[in-house]
Amino acid sequence: MDSIASAVMAKRFGNVTNFEQKSTKLYVSKAATKTQMEFDYDGPSMKTSVPGPRSQELTKQLGDIQNVGAVNFFCNYEESRGNYLVDVDGNRMLDLYTQISSIPIGYNHPALLKLMTNPHNLSTFVNRPALGILPPENFPDKISESLLSVAPSGMSRVQTMACGSCSNENAFKSMFIWYRNKERGQTAPSDQDLSTCMVNQAPGCPDLSILSFMGSFHGRTMGCLATTHSKVIHKLDIPSFDWPIAPFPRLQYPLEEFTRENAQEESRCLEEVEDLIVKWRQKGKPVAGIVVEPIQAEGGDNHASPDFFRSLRNIARKHGSAFHVDEVQTGGGTTGKFWAHEHWGMDDPADIVSFSKKLLTGGYFQRDELQPDKPYRIFNTWMGDPSKNLFLAEVLNVIHRENLLEEVTRSGKALLKGLYELQGQYPNILSRARGQGTFCAVDICDDETRNSIMLKARDKGVILGGCGDRSIRFRPALVFKEYHVHIFLNIFSDVLAQLK
Amino acid sequence: MDSIASAVMAKRFGNVTNFEQKSTKLYVSKAATKTQMEFDYDGPSMKTSVPGPRSQELTKQLGDIQNVGAVNFFCNYEESRGNYLVDVDGNRMLDLYTQISSIPIGYNHPALLKLMTNPHNLSTFVNRPALGILPPENFPDKISESLLSVAPSGMSRVQTMACGSCSNENAFKSMFIWYRNKERGQTAPSDQDLSTCMVNQAPGCPDLSILSFMGSFHGRTMGCLATTHSKVIHKLDIPSFDWPIAPFPRLQYPLEEFTRENAQEESRCLEEVEDLIVKWRQKGKPVAGIVVEPIQAEGGDNHASPDFFRSLRNIARKHGSAFHVDEVQTGGGTTGKFWAHEHWGMDDPADIVSFSKKLLTGGYFQRDELQPDKPYRIFNTWMGDPSKNLFLAEVLNVIHRENLLEEVTRSGKALLKGLYELQGQYPNILSRARGQGTFCAVDICDDETRNSIMLKARDKGVILGGCGDRSIRFRPALVFKEYHVHIFLNIFSDVLAQLK
Repeated sequence: MDSIASAVMAKRFGNVTNFEQKSTKLYVSKAATKTQMEFDYDGPSMKTSVPGPRSQELTKQLGDIQNVGAVNFFCNYEESRGNYLVDVDGNRMLDLYTQISSIPIGYNHPALLKLMTNPHNLSTFVNRPALGILPPENFPDKISESLLSVAPSGMSRVQTMACGSCSNENAFKSMFIWYRNKERGQTAPSDQDLSTCMVNQAPGCPDLSILSFMGSFHGRTMGCLATTHSKVIHKLDIPSFDWPIAPFPRLQYPLEEFTRENAQEESRCLEEVEDLIVKWRQKGKPVAGIVVEPIQAEGGDNHASPDFFRSLRNIARKHGSAFHVDEVQTGGGTTGKFWAHEHWGMDDPADIVSFSKKLLTGGYFQRDELQPDKPYRIFNTWMGDPSKNLFLAEVLNVIHRENLLEEVTRSGKALLKGLYELQGQYPNILSRARGQGTFCAVDICDDETRNSIMLKARDKGVILGGCGDRSIRFRPALVFKEYHVHIFLNIFSDVLAQLK
Repeated sequence: MDSIASAVMAKRFGNVTNFEQKSTKLYVSKAATKTQMEFDYDGPSMKTSVPGPRSQELTKQLGDIQNVGAVNFFCNYEESRGNYLVDVDGNRMLDLYTQISSIPIGYNHPALLKLMTNPHNLSTFVNRPALGILPPENFPDKISESLLSVAPSGMSRVQTMACGSCSNENAFKSMFIWYRNKERGQTAPSDQDLSTCMVNQAPGCPDLSILSFMGSFHGRTMGCLATTHSKVIHKLDIPSFDWPIAPFPRLQYPLEEFTRENAQEESRCLEEVEDLIVKWRQKGKPVAGIVVEPIQAEGGDNHASPDFFRSLRNIARKHGSAFHVDEVQTGGGTTGKFWAHEHWGMDDPADIVSFSKKLLTGGYFQRDELQPDKPYRIFNTWMGDPSKNLFLAEVLNVIHRENLLEEVTRSGKALLKGLYELQGQYPNILSRARGQGTFCAVDICDDETRNSIMLKARDKGVILGGCGDRSIRFRPALVFKEYHVHIFLNIFSDVLAQLK
């Protein structure tokens, strides 16, 4: 941080924190580049503790309309910029959670604002089409320029959807349809198939299953929820399917120091996967597909090695199950590659890759064979939203133009290095620092301390998110530079120091 | 139609139809009002048959990326206005299907375009929040002004969602949670509840059910799909739940001529509902909720009387099941009232009312008791989209300012009267004309003739949609005036005359 920025920040922080003294002592960063500064603030600025009085008032007001137990505070999105989220009490916070990892290039990026002022784009916002029957003229071109330009290896087909859950639901349906078509061979569905499906019975609605992993999160609609196993609050009281659930490797970190132990743990889980596939086939509920996150996010930022995923992909192939990689949280550049599965180095990484969040539209890529044989099998009114595709195309331009994947790799290294250092300094509080790109996490000694750290950090101008039982996950935007890493580390270090 | 408009239209139609002669002979309409003309065209104008060469070329291009079997043609949304959809070959068609009933006030309504040019609105489009945790400052006000201003009787709580399926999925979840909380009384979930839910097993994931009706459509994600029973293509090959399915009344039309027969049919169905509730309770899969459309839309525009719905609501109450009215297609003014259930004349019509389509955002209203007891039970990243709420607020202003519900009632009467007349004239082709507001339908002698009529009408400049086995459904925008009814009836009449 340069001296001007640091002086400004000290002034803005006022008496809320003793940021100034600490920051210069610990982590010194270069000034932000011109491009960045144009739409970013130069540091946090806190006026009240969070939620402030105005947020509290609005929360009370909203409480008459909705359950507000999850509301953190109310935001002034118009004043937010780049990596900084501004709240309604005038507090400006460095955002390392970015709306549950769904803001790709920061708040109010000038490229996105500019797109809104182009009169040719207005009708895309005002007239949302039923994309599956009446697409706009520029749809094939727009989708080729945007989504297909980042298609995973081996995939040339993409289907947009409104959100992550819808994407996974429809990906599951594609796998079921593909699996049953395979079982039937070239023959048409039987009369019995046709009549039983209308009343929810087999064989028309077959007893097929999706294999998922303990700790996974794939969404909360009822199909997705049957593959989600991260927290009780998501699942309690909702009927589900009897589908197989495999253990996800519980690795030791840093990964490179525990290669032998971790390989053993991964073998154990892979064996269990094969056992479950066999067992569920014997139960009459064959596994049509396996769904997995490249890094279990909501479930606690659990990593596995490229070898694990390569073996898993092979097991799916061997048993005739489709392989679905859920990149809703990992996709869009945050791991330093556009897709986290690219770290596996495979030509044929998956049959289906689903996305949402940072891509602004939901959807999934699929291999040709997975596309349903007939129209209207995968269908709904909107099938996505072209106005979101418009933003995505521009986001991809910005990622390319500003070399953001390289920036993420650089910032991620600085972030992880800082976490290792703090972990060395506070071994009773921090453990298991881990990450890929800026998709990082660290464990806290217990849930209560974790929550206390997050609230204290927020009052000092840093927004963090939790995951798993006692992890903090870092999910900054792709415009999060080394400069921002240092601002964060200084504040985080202050918070830890005050805990002791 | 005034003489200038009719001359212009005749000129634009050129040699494609003999519209001019017929139109003056059959249905004569007054000139459109000034307000309407400002953003509407004065009639269809056809240059090619549909899909034209440009649409065919683009369909081929998109075919490399997606299944295009459902694509009708490609659209020029920028040139579309009011009730007229323009395609990429320069054809301008009167739209009575409006993107599967999801365009509330026509294409490119000036009020919506104006909203886009207000710089204060830009950040709402550019920064999509995680609404459940970080709502924007104006969220409580905006939602009060817009959605709560049209809240169904007895409901002061609303939850937005991204689409119709997500709305119904989460409404179902709310009913399950409510039902289990009721079963548990004041006690907390047991340890067994907590441990079993993580592995998809009862009692944590209980064997509860939702009762639905044969012919219903409630969406295509896996929970919704278990209550959808309209077409094989939606359900084949997708695993489902063993939930009860009651017969929906199959009434005779016009309803007022068959009151006795229809009342008998409705009684039969209501008895079956009660039998199924008892039977499923005995099976150990109690009915937590009943879901029903006020008019079965996708399933063939099947109506039932206010008495039927009042009795059904009482049956739900008597058996301790929640009552969920799915207004995804019927809501938003198309029946002449904002919600179709208002025709039932009840103070307490439902526990949950879901919506999407014409409301531009998905979501559902609920009675206080149905709101889950804890945060994060109903949750996802986006929880809707404030930019859609912005459009909805303006749509509601326009509906109010332009008295569109009255207009819909007036146009609907003219439309139904015209359908009755044509049905009298072509008894071998048309039957069962029916409707409420402009939410009208007519049956065609067989599926093949139905499809042929729809294609012929399209080539003459009228877009229609099908539903059920052999119905045509009419779903114009709320700005569809008597003037447009007559343009449609003239063309429809031509098509029928040529069929004979």
